[in-house]
Amino acid sequence: MSSAYLCCAAILLGLIALVPNRAQTVASRKDAKMVAAIVAVLDAQREAWNRGDIEGYMNDYSRSDKTVFISGDNLTRGWQLVLDRYKKNYNSRDKMGKLTFSQLETTLLTNDAAMVMGRWHLLRANDEPHGRFTLVFRKTKQGWKIVHDHTSSVQE
Amino acid sequence: MSSAYLCCAAILLGLIALVPNRAQTVASRKDAKMVAAIVAVLDAQREAWNRGDIEGYMNDYSRSDKTVFISGDNLTRGWQLVLDRYKKNYNSRDKMGKLTFSQLETTLLTNDAAMVMGRWHLLRANDEPHGRFTLVFRKTKQGWKIVHDHTSSVQE
Repeated sequence: MSSAYLCCAAILLGLIALVPNRAQTVASRKDAKMVAAIVAVLDAQREAWNRGDIEGYMNDYSRSDKTVFISGDNLTRGWQLVLDRYKKNYNSRDKMGKLTFSQLETTLLTNDAAMVMGRWHLLRANDEPHGRFTLVFRKTKQGWKIVHDHTSSVQE
Repeated sequence: MSSAYLCCAAILLGLIALVPNRAQTVASRKDAKMVAAIVAVLDAQREAWNRGDIEGYMNDYSRSDKTVFISGDNLTRGWQLVLDRYKKNYNSRDKMGKLTFSQLETTLLTNDAAMVMGRWHLLRANDEPHGRFTLVFRKTKQGWKIVHDHTSSVQE
């Protein structure tokens, strides 16, 4: 066996070995981009809340009659009714407090659906309500939007 | 133009018109089958609970370290820890009570992922805790399994 042949075989094996890694890297990059886009939506949402802009906050929910918000034993269906609920429950800057998110974990379910879980915390003058949320995002023409929000809370 | 030609054209047009409906019907049938399989898992789960069989109930969660159960501000990760939590919180038939599910709604996100929301209710001698859940199911080799459970509750 000539050394040229061995060299060729080595290069070929090297290339074969690279193929799945390359494909994996491309997929990982695409996934990372999707996760980053979703996290950016949540960043924008938190920032809107913290400047007292509930309409801006609501911009990240899908503007659909099917959008669902669940807390406790209550289900609110439809973008407008979810907005109305927020406006009713947080009708002052004091009630809105300062919102932070933490422990965000995004799971991509398909190219246009993802689940995000995380913790939320409201710092207010007299209390600090907090809890966890599970969000389902869908990728729409307007970008990634929340179609389902299940939020649970404790008051401490 | 002969009547035979017209007849052929009519049949062809009829067949073309049928194609999308046929495809839609096949997709709907497949979707309906998936939804039925998921609802059957929840039926089995409720039945296991109501015979006091927590291990059987837990059989419908994915046997994975990544399986997540969220309630209030608490997150439990891993099938075994979710089982331990259930065994601790429901350590007698009285505490388990009689479980019913209602208002189940299943959304297929892809061929192997679905979201289910619904209400749960426990009938016990002294109270009736109830609330809502959002589940994410994945289709595994062992069938449809819950990988994520966010449950919220009220005590009344």
